[in-house]
Amino acid sequence: MKTVEIEVRTSDRYEFVSITDRVKEAVRDLGPQNGLCVIASTHTTAGITVNEDFDPDVRRDLRTASEALINSLDVTFRHAEGNSDSHLLTSFFGPSETLTVTDGSLDLGRWQGVYLCEFDGPRNRTVRLSVLEG
Amino acid sequence: MKTVEIEVRTSDRYEFVSITDRVKEAVRDLGPQNGLCVIASTHTTAGITVNEDFDPDVRRDLRTASEALINSLDVTFRHAEGNSDSHLLTSFFGPSETLTVTDGSLDLGRWQGVYLCEFDGPRNRTVRLSVLEG
Amino acid sequence: MKTVEIEVRTSDRYEFVSITDRVKEAVRDLGPQNGLCVIASTHTTAGITVNEDFDPDVRRDLRTASEALINSLDVTFRHAEGNSDSHLLTSFFGPSETLTVTDGSLDLGRWQGVYLCEFDGPRNRTVRLSVLEG
Repeated sequence: MKTVEIEVRTSDRYEFVSITDRVKEAVRDLGPQNGLCVIASTHTTAGITVNEDFDPDVRRDLRTASEALINSLDVTFRHAEGNSDSHLLTSFFGPSETLTVTDGSLDLGRWQGVYLCEFDGPRNRTVRLSVLEG
Repeated sequence: MKTVEIEVRTSDRYEFVSITDRVKEAVRDLGPQNGLCVIASTHTTAGITVNEDFDPDVRRDLRTASEALINSLDVTFRHAEGNSDSHLLTSFFGPSETLTVTDGSLDLGRWQGVYLCEFDGPRNRTVRLSVLEG
Repeated sequence: MKTVEIEVRTSDRYEFVSITDRVKEAVRDLGPQNGLCVIASTHTTAGITVNEDFDPDVRRDLRTASEALINSLDVTFRHAEGNSDSHLLTSFFGPSETLTVTDGSLDLGRWQGVYLCEFDGPRNRTVRLSVLEG
C-alpha cells in the first residue's frame, strides 16, 4: 500500500470542492496498474463523496439541500462547538470512498467525480489517498 | 483484481432493486477464495446499499422514506435537468459498498442483501463488481 | 485476509456506541503492517460510521438528529416489524467503513473514532473486522 496526502483549502462553511483531477493525478503518480484506492477525509466535519462533476449547479444543489435538511430538523444540539450539523452531514455523505483502479487509471463513470464535502469551513483539509495493488 | 459488469433495468423513478443473487453469482464465477469485493454504481443518480432483502415491504419503505425526505426539504434547485433530488439521495445511500469474501462466498449477514438504488429511472444501469484476492 | 468478530451489547433503541478502542486492538492483534481494514455490521438495523470520538455530546447529538430526521418525515411505513426508520438510517450512516492500516496501526484522524450505530436496540450486535495485507 502507498499513501499520499492531498491538501484542500475550502472557502465557505458548506462547500463541495471537486478533487477529481488531483485524485486522478495522484493515482497515476503512485503507479498501481490495478487495485483499490481509498480516499479518506481525516476530519469529522468534512466527508468524501462521488457525484456528478460536470454541471456546477449539481454541487450548488448538494449544498443547498444539505442546508435545507439541517433547517428541516426540529432539534436542539448540545455539543458546545455548535457544529453538530457538520458531524451529521459528514456521516451521511460518508468519511471516505473506495474506488478501483484499472490499467493505471481510476475507475469513474462518465459523469462521476470525487468531492471533498466541507461542512464546517472555511478550513485547510487533508485527504488521504491510499492504493493497494492486486 | 478482476472486474465484471452487471446490467440492471429499472422500472420506476425511485426503486430499490435487489441484486443480491446476481452479485453472489458473480463472486462465485470470479472465483476468489478470500478478499475484498467492491460493488459500484457507475452513475450519479443511482447508488448501492446493503439492507434487508427478505420482506419486500422494506424496499418499499426505503423508497417511501426517500420520497418523504425530499418532500420535507424547503428548497429550490438550480440544476437544469431537474434531478438534484437524485444526486442528493445517491450520495446519502452511497455510490458503492465494499464487502468481504470468505471461502469463495460473499460475506453478508443473515438478512442482508445488496440493492441498486434507482433515483432517476427508469433506466438501464451498470454496476461494476471488482474482487481483489488476498 | 483475516477476520475477527466483535460483539457489542447496546442499551437503547438509538445509540452510537464507540468501538474505537476495540477496533484498534483487533487490528494490532491481527498484525497486518499495511493494508485495508473493513469494519462491517452484519445487521440491517445497525450501521457503522466514523465520527468524532472525543466530546460525548457529539454522539448524543447524532442520536438526537437521527430521531429528528425520522420525525420530520410525513410517511406511513408498511413493514410489519415497525422498524423501517431503522433500515433507512442504517443505509444513510452506512453498513460498513473501509479504513487503512499503516505500520501496524489503524489510520484515523486526530478526532476520528469508529461507532456502531444502533437504530433498533437494545440488542446484541456483531461487527466483522477484516484486514487485507498489501
